[in-house]
Amino acid sequence: MSQRVVVIGGDAAGMTAASALRRKLPKDHEVVVLERGSWTSYSACGIPYWISGEVGSAEALVARSVEAHLANGIDVRMGVEATAIDPEARTVSTRGGADLSYDRLVIATGAEPVRPALPGIDGEGTYGVQTLDDGQALIDGLAEKPEHVVVVGSGYVGLEIAEACVARGFDTTVIDRSKAPLSIIEPELGEQVAAAMRAHGIRLLSDASVTGFTLDHSGRVSVVTTKDDSVHADLVVLGLGVTARSKLAADAGLLLGAKGGIVVDEHQRVIGHDDIWAAGDCVVTKDRLTGELIHVPLGTHANKQGMVAADSIVADVFGSDPRIRFPGIVRTAITKFCALEIARTGLGERQAADAGFDPVTVSIETTNFAGYMPGAEKMTVMMLADRSTRRLIGAQIVGGEDSALRIDVAATAIAAGLTIDDVVMLDLAYAPPYSSVWSPIQVAARAAVKALG
Amino acid sequence: MSQRVVVIGGDAAGMTAASALRRKLPKDHEVVVLERGSWTSYSACGIPYWISGEVGSAEALVARSVEAHLANGIDVRMGVEATAIDPEARTVSTRGGADLSYDRLVIATGAEPVRPALPGIDGEGTYGVQTLDDGQALIDGLAEKPEHVVVVGSGYVGLEIAEACVARGFDTTVIDRSKAPLSIIEPELGEQVAAAMRAHGIRLLSDASVTGFTLDHSGRVSVVTTKDDSVHADLVVLGLGVTARSKLAADAGLLLGAKGGIVVDEHQRVIGHDDIWAAGDCVVTKDRLTGELIHVPLGTHANKQGMVAADSIVADVFGSDPRIRFPGIVRTAITKFCALEIARTGLGERQAADAGFDPVTVSIETTNFAGYMPGAEKMTVMMLADRSTRRLIGAQIVGGEDSALRIDVAATAIAAGLTIDDVVMLDLAYAPPYSSVWSPIQVAARAAVKALG
Repeated sequence: MSQRVVVIGGDAAGMTAASALRRKLPKDHEVVVLERGSWTSYSACGIPYWISGEVGSAEALVARSVEAHLANGIDVRMGVEATAIDPEARTVSTRGGADLSYDRLVIATGAEPVRPALPGIDGEGTYGVQTLDDGQALIDGLAEKPEHVVVVGSGYVGLEIAEACVARGFDTTVIDRSKAPLSIIEPELGEQVAAAMRAHGIRLLSDASVTGFTLDHSGRVSVVTTKDDSVHADLVVLGLGVTARSKLAADAGLLLGAKGGIVVDEHQRVIGHDDIWAAGDCVVTKDRLTGELIHVPLGTHANKQGMVAADSIVADVFGSDPRIRFPGIVRTAITKFCALEIARTGLGERQAADAGFDPVTVSIETTNFAGYMPGAEKMTVMMLADRSTRRLIGAQIVGGEDSALRIDVAATAIAAGLTIDDVVMLDLAYAPPYSSVWSPIQVAARAAVKALG
Repeated sequence: MSQRVVVIGGDAAGMTAASALRRKLPKDHEVVVLERGSWTSYSACGIPYWISGEVGSAEALVARSVEAHLANGIDVRMGVEATAIDPEARTVSTRGGADLSYDRLVIATGAEPVRPALPGIDGEGTYGVQTLDDGQALIDGLAEKPEHVVVVGSGYVGLEIAEACVARGFDTTVIDRSKAPLSIIEPELGEQVAAAMRAHGIRLLSDASVTGFTLDHSGRVSVVTTKDDSVHADLVVLGLGVTARSKLAADAGLLLGAKGGIVVDEHQRVIGHDDIWAAGDCVVTKDRLTGELIHVPLGTHANKQGMVAADSIVADVFGSDPRIRFPGIVRTAITKFCALEIARTGLGERQAADAGFDPVTVSIETTNFAGYMPGAEKMTVMMLADRSTRRLIGAQIVGGEDSALRIDVAATAIAAGLTIDDVVMLDLAYAPPYSSVWSPIQVAARAAVKALG
């Protein structure tokens, strides 16, 4: 019997699920995608590089266009906003349209930017960077040549936008409430990022909470105020992070976890709702080390989860066993600020202690490749191991060229449950243009072994 | 009671062992190193970069000088060649010197270049690249501005030397008996290396065995002959690989494996000889996937093995349990030819089949980072999985900037026994300047999953 899957949201998780469903379900099954915006399958992470000019157009960030999805037989309905889900009736209501019934539903509504209720935050000249439309608006704003740009927040989006703005010659200030930028890494490493920001001409106000925005007579932002400072601004970018866009799910009574993320099982099935799956930035995800459900909105998880949801739905349709499951994450993240590369995986010191580990932390300095090769640069690796099990539980890297991707060895080792002793004995690649005879991750692991005695 | 450890060989494995022993043994224990050459602890792998001029001097390749080792309390005896070992009497004979008695012995004699008995091979103008002295001789030879350089062999040393020679403006020919250069990778990938070599102006004669060298009246090489060709040459570099330098061990009755490598246990103890350890390029090592004992001379293994040998000796001295063991290798290797990066780990197709695996092989093309970023270049990943266990058993990479080090994820995954399904779900780093949303290794793993059905 012909059935209908409805997917709410047409970006990474939603379109990955829809595409896999279209490939694997019989032709008479409908796959409908409701997307409230005007783009599908785009790389939100690429927006800063479009702002900087390194990427030429919004189209370049679109992995697969609406037309391509339609040609693949997916019933993509653009500009259609889902307004309510009725899990009993199995219907989705849409703004200004008829209700749509479903046999199975995938919620992939993504995340939405944090926008605190500060005075003046809705003034003209204040931008988010969540969607391609946001990106275009910001590009248009920058085209008016603002004299002073203020970026609020120094997470990786804030940093990337700040880099793009200085690269384009704008006077740029970053205001952040933390002591050091990039809270994904420990403050000691964040200080290196702070130094690089200042060296590139960014004014960095740390430990400073924004208290409001002063608007001029035309309603345009003119000053950003903090407890101690007033910073002139005629363009403001908000980079305060995101929360799950899960109001639809909440209203339908679905269970929510951290930052409003929908709680799902390892097949992305919504707990307590056999006909509903959720994937991507709108869900919480298991930390493989701690078991905790956390909200980590990243395209890499969204793609995998969309694939897993589709697999589970296909199994459900055919009455077979699902073939894959989403095992959770280890909090891997990577970014760069100008030439400085930054990465982390696993737990930080505080996270490890909170989760009941007995962490030992070491920090080593080495070079990104053999020290005698031209261009060798400083690289810092911080590593955490659990004292009782000797397991590797975290690593962070800040350094020059070719530093950051080395985090993948640690991410793989953590997922596999390796000890620091195992890491020391891994057969990692060695040649002078790439590495010293001990890979930087192994130099850190040796230091951790020494620290554990 | 004061005891004496004698180490034969003062490079990576020998000096790593000696240094660790000196740190961990009581002061009244002697640590004696016999080195027949004039350098200690140097990076032989760095020699090609010295030849090219990227590294300024031989000294730059020395990690720790003789003086530094002496200052650390190691009794390094330079220019002293061990000529025989008597395991019964526990003595080492030296050329022109007295016998030296030992309580425990470490053999770290390294490897020696393959030098087939071809007519004219000992003519003037023919060089090896095994030691720093070899490197200096080759630099002196190149200073005489030869018109035609011929490199025999296209392993990674041959390739690196050929690159150095064209970089310095010499007319350079590489002669190799294989169908494609770099036998560490499959021929399909080797063809990409061949194309890059030709694009850089190297003449490559593949599938061509050297039959001899014609010398001029002064005894200097003038022509290299193969079955089908005669190639003019006034300087020849031999890059035909190495075998273990284990005549001493053989004469003493020690058990030898592939390419003359000494057979040791996982504590680097020589089988059947409780007082003798061996480490580095002179031993055979266990392949972690197949259990086979193979000869893989690389500084990274030598350092680890030297450390393991020292740990075992210290345990033996104190009557305690050793703390570490050498688990074997997964055949990881990495190199580059000009801008082309090349890496492998695990088994090739033939090796996998020979070892009794039922391999499925896939090959994918992707880009080294997000395809929409400027400078994204082609990257090929070949991957092998075992059909019955679904384990990842091999990976090979050829591609542009930042391609090759990704092999470390595969090397870690193989060591940890991960399946290709596990690899697909790893939480690897994602950001546009580094990677597409699926890491290249995961793109290949997904293809392998698809191929396995």
